[in-house]
Amino acid sequence: MSNQHAQSAAELLRRLREGVPLVQCLTNAVVANFTANSLLALGAAPAMVDLPTEAGPFARLASAVLINLGTPQHDQRVAMVEAVTVANAAGTPWVLDPVAIGALPVRTHLARDLLGLRPTVIRGNPSEIIALAGAGHGGRGVDSTDSAEDALEAARNLAIDFGSIVAISGGTDIVTDGVRDVRVDNGTELLTRITGGGCALGAVIAAFAAQDQDRLATTVAACAVYTLAAEQAARESAGPGSFAVAFLDRLAGLTPDDVLAGVVIG
Amino acid sequence: MSNQHAQSAAELLRRLREGVPLVQCLTNAVVANFTANSLLALGAAPAMVDLPTEAGPFARLASAVLINLGTPQHDQRVAMVEAVTVANAAGTPWVLDPVAIGALPVRTHLARDLLGLRPTVIRGNPSEIIALAGAGHGGRGVDSTDSAEDALEAARNLAIDFGSIVAISGGTDIVTDGVRDVRVDNGTELLTRITGGGCALGAVIAAFAAQDQDRLATTVAACAVYTLAAEQAARESAGPGSFAVAFLDRLAGLTPDDVLAGVVIG
Amino acid sequence: MSNQHAQSAAELLRRLREGVPLVQCLTNAVVANFTANSLLALGAAPAMVDLPTEAGPFARLASAVLINLGTPQHDQRVAMVEAVTVANAAGTPWVLDPVAIGALPVRTHLARDLLGLRPTVIRGNPSEIIALAGAGHGGRGVDSTDSAEDALEAARNLAIDFGSIVAISGGTDIVTDGVRDVRVDNGTELLTRITGGGCALGAVIAAFAAQDQDRLATTVAACAVYTLAAEQAARESAGPGSFAVAFLDRLAGLTPDDVLAGVVIG
Repeated sequence: MSNQHAQSAAELLRRLREGVPLVQCLTNAVVANFTANSLLALGAAPAMVDLPTEAGPFARLASAVLINLGTPQHDQRVAMVEAVTVANAAGTPWVLDPVAIGALPVRTHLARDLLGLRPTVIRGNPSEIIALAGAGHGGRGVDSTDSAEDALEAARNLAIDFGSIVAISGGTDIVTDGVRDVRVDNGTELLTRITGGGCALGAVIAAFAAQDQDRLATTVAACAVYTLAAEQAARESAGPGSFAVAFLDRLAGLTPDDVLAGVVIG
Repeated sequence: MSNQHAQSAAELLRRLREGVPLVQCLTNAVVANFTANSLLALGAAPAMVDLPTEAGPFARLASAVLINLGTPQHDQRVAMVEAVTVANAAGTPWVLDPVAIGALPVRTHLARDLLGLRPTVIRGNPSEIIALAGAGHGGRGVDSTDSAEDALEAARNLAIDFGSIVAISGGTDIVTDGVRDVRVDNGTELLTRITGGGCALGAVIAAFAAQDQDRLATTVAACAVYTLAAEQAARESAGPGSFAVAFLDRLAGLTPDDVLAGVVIG
Repeated sequence: MSNQHAQSAAELLRRLREGVPLVQCLTNAVVANFTANSLLALGAAPAMVDLPTEAGPFARLASAVLINLGTPQHDQRVAMVEAVTVANAAGTPWVLDPVAIGALPVRTHLARDLLGLRPTVIRGNPSEIIALAGAGHGGRGVDSTDSAEDALEAARNLAIDFGSIVAISGGTDIVTDGVRDVRVDNGTELLTRITGGGCALGAVIAAFAAQDQDRLATTVAACAVYTLAAEQAARESAGPGSFAVAFLDRLAGLTPDDVLAGVVIG
C-alpha cells in the first residue's frame, strides 16, 4: 500500500515537472512570496492574479487555482468567487485553504460560501477543518491546537458532503475522501516555525491536482513531496531562517527516486 | 544597573517562550513576512488579522497588538482603530510604529489620531519620533537621517504627554518613559541593509509587552534580545541576504544565558 | 565598445553608491520585500509609498520611480498615475514594468494609459514587450515564452513611439533606444526560478536611471550589474532558496572592479 502511494507520488512529481502547471494563487499577502517561490522551486509556474475582472479570465488559462483566506480583502473576495466559478465551469481543480476561520466573521462567511461551490481539495490545520465542518470555533489564528486525528471525523464529513478531498496538516498529515484515509508521516516541526509552511502546501496541492483526476492520489503525493523536502531541509538547517532557504533548495532538487526512497505513507 | 536590566531581559525571554504570546500585527505589506517569521523564530505566535470587523474581535484574543503605518490602505486604517479600541478596553498592550510619517499626509494624520489613543509603546527611528512629536518633518521614508540622541527630547515629551514608553532605534537604541532613559548598545549596521529591520522590532516589542506590566523593562528587553541576535548573526554573514537568514536562526537559538552574557544595557 | 559599456557601468555603480538614490516603488505585493531588499543591497534607499495623496508628494522627493503592474489594486492604480504625473513634471525618471499584460484587462488598460505618459524606461519579458507594443497577447503570466530577440522589433517601436529606453529580459538581455541595441550576456537561469527576479531588476533600473541623463547607458549598467551579481550567486548556490540569499549578498558586495572584469556587454 505504502509502496504504491510512493510510486504514484514519484510518477506525479515527474509529470508535474514535465508539464509545468500554471497555478493561479489568490492568497494572503504575508505568504505570497514564499508560496510563489515554493511553486517555482517545485517546477510549477505561479501567477498571483487576484483582481476582479482579471481573476476569472485568468482561471480559464490556469491548470489549477488556490484560494487561501489568510487576508481576504474586499476585492480579493470578489475575485475568489469569480475565479472559482470559472474553474468549476472549466473543470479546473481548485483548493480551498480556510485560514483562521471560526471566530473571524468575514473569512468564515466566505469559507461557507466557497464550500458550497465544492472545492476539489480542502487543506487546513485541525482546528480549521473542525471549524469548517461547523463543529468548532477555530484556533487562535493560523496555528493549530488540535492534532490531525481530532479533525478526522470533521474531515470525512466535509469530504462526503461536498465531494472534496480533505487534507489535514499536522505532525502526521491525513488525507481523506470520506471513505479512505491516507496518512503521510514525513515532515518536521520546523514547518510550524516559518510563516506560510501550511499555506504553500495548499499551492503545491493545487499544482499536483492538475496532474491526474485521482485527487486522493495527487493530494497524498503533494503532502508527501512537500513534507519530505521539509524533512531533508531540517537536517541541514541551523534554525527557521536557514530551514526556509534549504526547503526551497530541497523542493527544487528532490527527484522521483528520492520520493520513492523517502516518503512514509500508509 | 546594566546587570539588572540583563537579568530582567533574560527572565522576560524565558517567560515569553513559555507563554507563546499571540501578537496581532496590522503591518505593512512589504515586511509582513519577515515580521511573522521574526515572531515565530522568537517563540511568539503571529496573526496578521487586519480586516475591518475582524481586527476588533481578534484583538480580544491577542496578547498584544502591533500597529505599523508602512502601507496604511483604507481598510487597514479602519481596522487599526478598531483593534486599538478593543485593546485599550481590554488592557491589552499595543505598539505604534509611525513609519515614514512627517511629510506624508495619510499616515501622519492617522498617527496623530492613534497617538490620542495612548499607545503602550511607540517605536520609531529618530526622524519619525521627532515628526510624531510635532517637532520635525520626517525623513525620506523608513531610513533615518538623525541619531537617537537627537530625538531624545521629542521621545521624552511623547512619553510624558501620552503615557507611552518610547523606543528610538539607532546605532544605540534609547528607551524612555520620559524620566528614565535606558540605552541598548547591541546591534549591527546590517539591520539597516534589510527591509523590515526596524518594523520586526516593533512586533518583538509587542510580544515582550505581553510579559509584564513594567513596559520600560519589557521594551528594553525586546530591543536587547533583538539587537543581540542581530549582532550575533552579523558575525556569520557574508552580506544582507545571509544576514537576514542568520538573524532568524539566532533569534530562535538565543538562550536566556546568551542574553545575560551578551547584552550591553546602561 | 564592450569595454566602454563596462567602464560606464562600473562608474555608474560607484556614483549610485555615493548618492544613495531614493527609489519610490509602486510594485506588486508578491515581490515588494525582495525588491526593497535588492535596492538596499545595491546601495539605494527603497520607499514603497503607493497610497493616493501620498504617492504624488513623495514622488517630488524621489530620485526615481518604479511602476510595476503585478498586482494593481484600485488605490494603487490611482497612486501610480499620481506619482508618474509628478515625476514627469519634476523631470524624475520612472520605469514601467508591464507585468503579465496582454490578456488581463485591468493592467493592460492601465499599461496603455501609462505608456501615453512616456516612461523613461520600459522593462519586461519578451511576451510583455510584444503585448505592450500591441503586437501580441502576452504570455501565461510573469514567465515568458519568447526569446528577447523575438521582441526586439516591438521594443524598437515602443522606444521610438514613446521616447523610452526598452529593456527586454531573457537569456541575453537587450536594451534599445530604437536605434542602438545593446546586449548584456550575463545572468543565470536561476533568476527565473525565484519570484521577483525580473521585478527587482525594474527597481534597479530605476536606481541607475537617477545617475545620469544617458538612460541607454544607465539601463545597460543596471542590467549588467544585476545579472552579474546573479551569475556570481548562482556559482555558490545549491538551489533557488540559497540563490536568492547569495544574490543579495553579491549585489551588496559587487565592486566597480568586479563589474569591469565580469560584465559581458556588446
